[in-house]
Amino acid sequence: MNIKAPRGTQDLLPETTGNWQYIEQKLTDLCRRFNYKEIRTPVFEHTELFQRGVGDSTDIVQKEMYTFQDRGGRSLTLRPEGTASAVRAFVEHKLYGLANQPVKLFYFGPMFRYERPQQGRMRQFVQFGIEALGSADPAVDAEVLALAMSAYQELGLRSLKLVLNSLGDAESRNNHREALVEHFSPHKEELCADCQVRLEQNPLRILDCKKDKDHPAMATAPSILTYLNEESEQYFAQVRNHLDNMGIDYVIDPNLVRGLDYYNHTAFEIMSNAEGFGAITTLSGGGRYNGLVEELGGPETPGIGFAMSLERLLMALEAEGIELPVADGLDCFFVSLGDQAEKAAVRYTYELRKAGVQVDKDYQQRKFKAQFKAADRSKAKYVVILGEEELQNNTATVRNMNTGEQEDVSLQQLVAYMKKELEGEN
Amino acid sequence: MNIKAPRGTQDLLPETTGNWQYIEQKLTDLCRRFNYKEIRTPVFEHTELFQRGVGDSTDIVQKEMYTFQDRGGRSLTLRPEGTASAVRAFVEHKLYGLANQPVKLFYFGPMFRYERPQQGRMRQFVQFGIEALGSADPAVDAEVLALAMSAYQELGLRSLKLVLNSLGDAESRNNHREALVEHFSPHKEELCADCQVRLEQNPLRILDCKKDKDHPAMATAPSILTYLNEESEQYFAQVRNHLDNMGIDYVIDPNLVRGLDYYNHTAFEIMSNAEGFGAITTLSGGGRYNGLVEELGGPETPGIGFAMSLERLLMALEAEGIELPVADGLDCFFVSLGDQAEKAAVRYTYELRKAGVQVDKDYQQRKFKAQFKAADRSKAKYVVILGEEELQNNTATVRNMNTGEQEDVSLQQLVAYMKKELEGEN
Repeated sequence: MNIKAPRGTQDLLPETTGNWQYIEQKLTDLCRRFNYKEIRTPVFEHTELFQRGVGDSTDIVQKEMYTFQDRGGRSLTLRPEGTASAVRAFVEHKLYGLANQPVKLFYFGPMFRYERPQQGRMRQFVQFGIEALGSADPAVDAEVLALAMSAYQELGLRSLKLVLNSLGDAESRNNHREALVEHFSPHKEELCADCQVRLEQNPLRILDCKKDKDHPAMATAPSILTYLNEESEQYFAQVRNHLDNMGIDYVIDPNLVRGLDYYNHTAFEIMSNAEGFGAITTLSGGGRYNGLVEELGGPETPGIGFAMSLERLLMALEAEGIELPVADGLDCFFVSLGDQAEKAAVRYTYELRKAGVQVDKDYQQRKFKAQFKAADRSKAKYVVILGEEELQNNTATVRNMNTGEQEDVSLQQLVAYMKKELEGEN
Repeated sequence: MNIKAPRGTQDLLPETTGNWQYIEQKLTDLCRRFNYKEIRTPVFEHTELFQRGVGDSTDIVQKEMYTFQDRGGRSLTLRPEGTASAVRAFVEHKLYGLANQPVKLFYFGPMFRYERPQQGRMRQFVQFGIEALGSADPAVDAEVLALAMSAYQELGLRSLKLVLNSLGDAESRNNHREALVEHFSPHKEELCADCQVRLEQNPLRILDCKKDKDHPAMATAPSILTYLNEESEQYFAQVRNHLDNMGIDYVIDPNLVRGLDYYNHTAFEIMSNAEGFGAITTLSGGGRYNGLVEELGGPETPGIGFAMSLERLLMALEAEGIELPVADGLDCFFVSLGDQAEKAAVRYTYELRKAGVQVDKDYQQRKFKAQFKAADRSKAKYVVILGEEELQNNTATVRNMNTGEQEDVSLQQLVAYMKKELEGEN
């Protein structure tokens, strides 16, 4: 039996990697303009990082991590998300000491969660994310939201919804938490097993439960927004003011909570309304996590970030029927007849490639006619023909495949000729 | 105690990721010109893939793999190299059935080997590699060698040596193998423990042994080049002819064997001669591996490829004192005084970013003067000043930090003005 890619993983073949490259380039440029700089952290980390940085009570840590021992007996885990690693690096390399604060980072990379594979949910998936560490200015929250929305908008998506909430500061959350416990305790036995545990550990997450979402007590649950203290309320108002001022639309959903333990103040998700997108509508999410840097051993440092799955982004593009402008055909294909002509083809293929031209030739010892077919299949803009006659005159025949026109060009002039022709094309 | 990155791994911080992005972009463009297309395979594979595809007798499989069981009891391994995965994907997705043959692939990605960490040898490292599957044309070998050399040359490296050998076809290798066994058997007891095993399993690899390299029997060992049959000799001659014809220099080393089991015919390494490069001189290597596709369950298909470590490439660039042309400073930094001006700064920062300009502002509630210092540190080409007076007139003062000149610009015109100014800069 042949060996397949492991369950829940996928190969990205040449027919799709052009789209990935395009998206990554666009997002990298977006980060450049917003002055976020790339960080790359290892694919695995000490398991303890995620226990502390994602939270022991989360589904991710309890059920979904790829954890293993290395040959030295260390417990390592393939990263399930990017924030814990970025913050770990921020602390380890003392980036809080840099003069330019906040430190604004972005990352791309594979993440790993052992879940039941389904559409839009792979065991290995790719996330793009940003983190802004070191500022508690509501304008940073607005900047992160703006970058997140721009990421989708600049790729052409239109059916987007930005859903916003505030989880407040510690005092607000504690007051809300008490109200939630009081509200749900009489119904404890009617809730699902997970929510019964959540009632003790993190009652906020009951609001996020898919099983209990139709329980009557959900509709009347106390809203975090009525428990925000003055400072938290003011913070949230400033974030909204900045968004209004920037012309960024949003809706407020007081039931928006995030799966990770460490969020406070601003929490958000970006959803797709596109028809045909199916059940999955959340494209990405993020929020503020003041406190996480201390949790991982650094000095008191506010932080905010967001992460998106590139797989879901691609699904959203497909749902909206958006084709990315990825180049397809070759600049040029060589067709040659005979050993001497082939030798010249090898050489001038190489010369053109060095000069920046995208070129290919036959490597299957195909007959003359079959080489033309290969040139067609490669969608070459130009075909360079090297026959015996041409070779005797030290020339090649260059055919423009669009117009059908052809011209004899001396081999010495070939690179210059092709470069000039292709300039006109682009 | 704080959590650190796992031993043998590293974080790439913003001060270095610009170089990585530059290199990846250059290599991606090189592949575009040579018509190699990207493939992305999962970070882990079924362990069996590497046992079969790298070879049970190799150090990699025997000692260096990160192997673990997932929650479903599968034995998975973090990939130690890229060829086995690329060939697995080629077979799984039946790429041998595509009309355009050979299938020419490239990849980037983290690889994992549990070794003693030292300079130029990390447990997680990044490889760039290419594979050409489906052609046994010596011109493809020459193309792969040309691409490999161009990768270094186009980044500016000069102290390079291309070392070439032929391992011949199966018949040639068998004859050579017998001669090696005959030659080394009288000295078996004098060889290291590894070589005693190699004498049984793969005597060719004795030639590669670092411990036994000064044993007198090494210098007189039979050369593969005298055991090449006619077909293999002719194949090797054609590869060399193409290289000569393309103007690519090389030296032949009959003792060049590669660590992996599956090579035949062309084998090569690229070394750096740069002073100050230290002990490590091999930058990359590759070769032909006709037979590997069948080994992994596909139809008879010739193949050739090469892989390079990006960490070593960076070391070579440093050894030759090459600085990559990576942009540093910002286009523009906003300085504002008062709440209303800050509000305008948030808005116009966003407008400029949407228009393609790289902009930042203060998020630390710094005083006016400290904001100018932050602008200096960010190496901004322009500073946009929003004070109370400016705001009353709906203007901003734009200062060119190179010339010191400044101009009042209406806020409505700001985006157009900055775009025009920056066009002149680039």
